[in-house]
Amino acid sequence: MASEYTVGKKNKVRQLRENAVYDTETVHAILNSALIASVGFVQDGEPVVVPMLFGRERETIFLHGARKARIIHLLKDTGTACLNVTHVDGLVYARSAFNSSMNYRSVTVFGSVRLIEDPDEKLHALRVISDCTMPGRWDELRAPQEKELKMTGVIALSIESASAKISTGMPEDEDEDYEIPIWAGVLPLQSAFATVQTDDRVIAGVEPSGVIKTMEGKVL
Amino acid sequence: MASEYTVGKKNKVRQLRENAVYDTETVHAILNSALIASVGFVQDGEPVVVPMLFGRERETIFLHGARKARIIHLLKDTGTACLNVTHVDGLVYARSAFNSSMNYRSVTVFGSVRLIEDPDEKLHALRVISDCTMPGRWDELRAPQEKELKMTGVIALSIESASAKISTGMPEDEDEDYEIPIWAGVLPLQSAFATVQTDDRVIAGVEPSGVIKTMEGKVL
Repeated sequence: MASEYTVGKKNKVRQLRENAVYDTETVHAILNSALIASVGFVQDGEPVVVPMLFGRERETIFLHGARKARIIHLLKDTGTACLNVTHVDGLVYARSAFNSSMNYRSVTVFGSVRLIEDPDEKLHALRVISDCTMPGRWDELRAPQEKELKMTGVIALSIESASAKISTGMPEDEDEDYEIPIWAGVLPLQSAFATVQTDDRVIAGVEPSGVIKTMEGKVL
Repeated sequence: MASEYTVGKKNKVRQLRENAVYDTETVHAILNSALIASVGFVQDGEPVVVPMLFGRERETIFLHGARKARIIHLLKDTGTACLNVTHVDGLVYARSAFNSSMNYRSVTVFGSVRLIEDPDEKLHALRVISDCTMPGRWDELRAPQEKELKMTGVIALSIESASAKISTGMPEDEDEDYEIPIWAGVLPLQSAFATVQTDDRVIAGVEPSGVIKTMEGKVL
């Protein structure tokens, strides 16, 4: 069933509104293909932006850090957060500086945050982050130890509103500029995983499993 | 001459301090190789993060947007901003979830912001943004029109403090975990420009210039 985020003051796209998308499917797809999110919080009334790995399960985004990390405490104390994910897909060379831009897929999420205290919920959240970042890896690993869980702070962000903004295709120039004999077009940018590099200390004969090999060459 | 940003409350790296770098050369190099920055500001006491193209000239970062854009006004009114740039260089598959992580180059900048009103300074700032994003392109383009400049809001952010955080290499596991017969290593992620795509409406016979062709294959 198609669903959309309600458009309100926070998530309303004001510039280039024709590029705005509010349906959950598009927002989720962009979040799914990102490795890190830029998470904003407020410290002493001033903004701070921190890149974080994350995982999403339905309308909840999980973030983790050292239990004592500033961002874990500030997010908990502030109670709200903003998170942005952006893929740059290319540079758009227009016929004027004014119309030059980039192609991108971007999502901004606003939500309430809480620190996860329950050990089972924490373990589940860490699994979601692992599954979103390194699919299939969790089951290959030894179980997390209690002290590791204690040292880790995990935040649950409930998505309250979100928007996506997508820009694709060729430059849109002023009518009269199309007569200028200048090259215009797109320089695509691609992010892709390369071939795995094995740690020297891996026990002889142990190879990367299928869940890892399948990541090689994957485009974000 | 080597110089460093003074370490203070805002820019002090608290987690994984061994990865922190404060020298201006490293900070500048990471900023130079990024296309967009995640810019944080405060709206009604809550954080907002917006991805923006940018340009740097010595210790000033220029940002632009539609003159009426929310971020331009909020940055001006707030007077301070935080900006983060992060390149993800790979996923680090450790022998435990706890030690799994990523390799990255990240910079966080804090500074004071002001709206540029002077037309000459504005034009200069736009040129810096263009030169940093699409090197050499500015001189190929027609001159910006007065109405285009009026429609554009440009912010100058003076870097007051900054830090870089860099993580490279293989996983660092617990001593006893090296005996587990599991694969460990790095899955590199590479962002690179591909081959240019020409707009159908380019006048026949006009080819991309050297400044554009030289971007093809460039790795960020």
